[in-house]
Amino acid sequence: MTTLAPRIPHGLFTSGEPVRSWTVSTAKPVRYEVAFTPDVLDPRNPALARAGTSRDGPAPARRLLVVEATVHDLYGERIRAYCAARGLRHRIHVLAAHERLKTMNSVFSVVEAMDRFGIARRSEPVVALGGGVLLDIVGLACSLYRRSTPYVRVPTTLIGLVDAGVGAKTGVNFGPYKNRLGTYHPATETLLDPGFLVTLDRRHLSNGMAEILKMALIKDRALFELLDEHGSRLVTERFRGGRSLRPVAEEVLGRAVHGMLEELQGNLWESELERIVDYGHSFSPTIEMRALPELLHGEAVCLDMALTTVIAERRGLVEPSERIRVLDVMRRLGLPVWHPLCAPDVLREALADTVRHRDGSQRLPLPSGIGDAVFVGDLTPGELAEAARYLKEYGGNGHA
Amino acid sequence: MTTLAPRIPHGLFTSGEPVRSWTVSTAKPVRYEVAFTPDVLDPRNPALARAGTSRDGPAPARRLLVVEATVHDLYGERIRAYCAARGLRHRIHVLAAHERLKTMNSVFSVVEAMDRFGIARRSEPVVALGGGVLLDIVGLACSLYRRSTPYVRVPTTLIGLVDAGVGAKTGVNFGPYKNRLGTYHPATETLLDPGFLVTLDRRHLSNGMAEILKMALIKDRALFELLDEHGSRLVTERFRGGRSLRPVAEEVLGRAVHGMLEELQGNLWESELERIVDYGHSFSPTIEMRALPELLHGEAVCLDMALTTVIAERRGLVEPSERIRVLDVMRRLGLPVWHPLCAPDVLREALADTVRHRDGSQRLPLPSGIGDAVFVGDLTPGELAEAARYLKEYGGNGHA
Repeated sequence: MTTLAPRIPHGLFTSGEPVRSWTVSTAKPVRYEVAFTPDVLDPRNPALARAGTSRDGPAPARRLLVVEATVHDLYGERIRAYCAARGLRHRIHVLAAHERLKTMNSVFSVVEAMDRFGIARRSEPVVALGGGVLLDIVGLACSLYRRSTPYVRVPTTLIGLVDAGVGAKTGVNFGPYKNRLGTYHPATETLLDPGFLVTLDRRHLSNGMAEILKMALIKDRALFELLDEHGSRLVTERFRGGRSLRPVAEEVLGRAVHGMLEELQGNLWESELERIVDYGHSFSPTIEMRALPELLHGEAVCLDMALTTVIAERRGLVEPSERIRVLDVMRRLGLPVWHPLCAPDVLREALADTVRHRDGSQRLPLPSGIGDAVFVGDLTPGELAEAARYLKEYGGNGHA
Repeated sequence: MTTLAPRIPHGLFTSGEPVRSWTVSTAKPVRYEVAFTPDVLDPRNPALARAGTSRDGPAPARRLLVVEATVHDLYGERIRAYCAARGLRHRIHVLAAHERLKTMNSVFSVVEAMDRFGIARRSEPVVALGGGVLLDIVGLACSLYRRSTPYVRVPTTLIGLVDAGVGAKTGVNFGPYKNRLGTYHPATETLLDPGFLVTLDRRHLSNGMAEILKMALIKDRALFELLDEHGSRLVTERFRGGRSLRPVAEEVLGRAVHGMLEELQGNLWESELERIVDYGHSFSPTIEMRALPELLHGEAVCLDMALTTVIAERRGLVEPSERIRVLDVMRRLGLPVWHPLCAPDVLREALADTVRHRDGSQRLPLPSGIGDAVFVGDLTPGELAEAARYLKEYGGNGHA
């Protein structure tokens, strides 16, 4: 096929072996925005109506909104009033979302709503309002629909604000496995409005605090100091509080989001499997799925962080005084440090699946002091069992 | 949150409004290989055993192969013998695949096989052997599994060799819609072995010829001349034939693959919605799904190309003599030019969904002469109906 060779544009294809071969080499540009947007449902605020479309273009005409059921109970009227005031023709698809409903069937429900709406491929972003589970489901539906449709995220929970709403991952559980199916498909725009936290219950605030604490432990000691000093009040007062707490709330949320984006920016598709943001996510996926529906995501993450804090101390990476402080902050944030599923056989199995997920090596992030992390590849089942034993006693005698 | 500002690495995030916001801007590098690899199942040929892994690394240890049921009937023994000879520990997942089984349930079946195999995330590419439908299903499963797992394609049909095996698209049908759910996730490596064509029936050879003819009509007049002169013999002799036909077969396949890759290289994620390779794919998705299981993909594509050839002639883009030649080549390749579903209401509905798919505009590729294309945005239902009427008569009186 030498006759083809002259037609090969220089630099597009490189010829390989004597047998004809082509190398396709390209790059997909990805750009997305995450912005704190207070009063996102205030009709005077154009942000939501414009989100995900060109700011210079004409006012948007149609939107499909997917709204989590509880959010719809609390904010449905305000959402409708917002759309009416902004002249947005819209349909609202209400979807119940929690970890047991984080399935492909929920994704299909969103896809069917998109079909009924007759959504255009690029110019009518789906708007998702809800917590982390809802955002992950809608993200996957939009990722799959016509091989990608844009969407906008409006997180309504703390974990949504600092974690699920910020990154690129979508996903659902499959069989016994957490987030086994998913894609990388960030929302074109994410609008962060901490105002939603006033209607969030305490347990879900603690749940989100776990992901903030994760960022603190592995890369942001100043954030840890803020959590130590103000964390429990932030939970109690739902990130509102008076004039004195407001700047703290803003700094905690800002540092958490900023830290997350710093880590993701250069590794959005996880080409690098040593990820410090995987801290707390080595054993927790298996524990969380086994415990369903008992543990929330952040609670399972905290169990994992407690375990690895103790392991890090045993390895001399963390001072005993630091371990005590960390476990104490967990307790004051309303998070568990031990659970019956922190048992040797479960932890061994969890480690095995994580090793497969990290392509054959542990690549396990451990804290190094407070605010830094290292990776290890030689964790033993014995260390895990010993740490769990310690935490059982610690948690069992009223200290946690 | 000015305290955060100094921590913002230059160029990573750009600050926007007074309210805190971040712009994540990055690019995903994608690189994949497509190589003609004769005798891919010959145990002396290391290509398949090594495909999708670093060529410098150690010999691969384990593989999950997903093999289409008919391919398994014909080649199962040879696949097993190949793996045994190359020392490849393996499991074979047999999957029936045709357009009506191109569903998420088939994707789940592959996912479950991956779970049972306990596949590593990066170093154990799934090997897919089959036609276009099988490749699209396995591609989607691998795309979703842990948010992307590598795979290798070995197309066994003509349409697989020149179309499904070459690009980046994965997908399944959903409800009445063709390829409504999917991703862009090219195989790390595709091995093209025309040797599989000797066991392919004539109708499926014609089916693949439709996609080759598409490339010819929109961008490669020399390829059209080859099809005009040798196309029918290539079908009859299954791209084998004697010493005289072999170079022609190689040139036809090479030009088809090369042309496809040329078009995809710069537009792999369809950021540009005016795609000449969409030629033949404006009305055919709806026709194909409505006709299931009667029409094969390439047959539906040919109906669409016949329609648009006639429309192009009516618009003065194609000479009457060229239209006659094109329809005649279609006939000699064993492809249909008219079907009862080429009815005004079906075509109108097909156009409406295509307009949604192309984000609100027709962006309809039409042939310009033979070997070139233009885009139009003003096709009328009347033109469509008139072209269909003509083809009904043409097809009805024995000319097609």
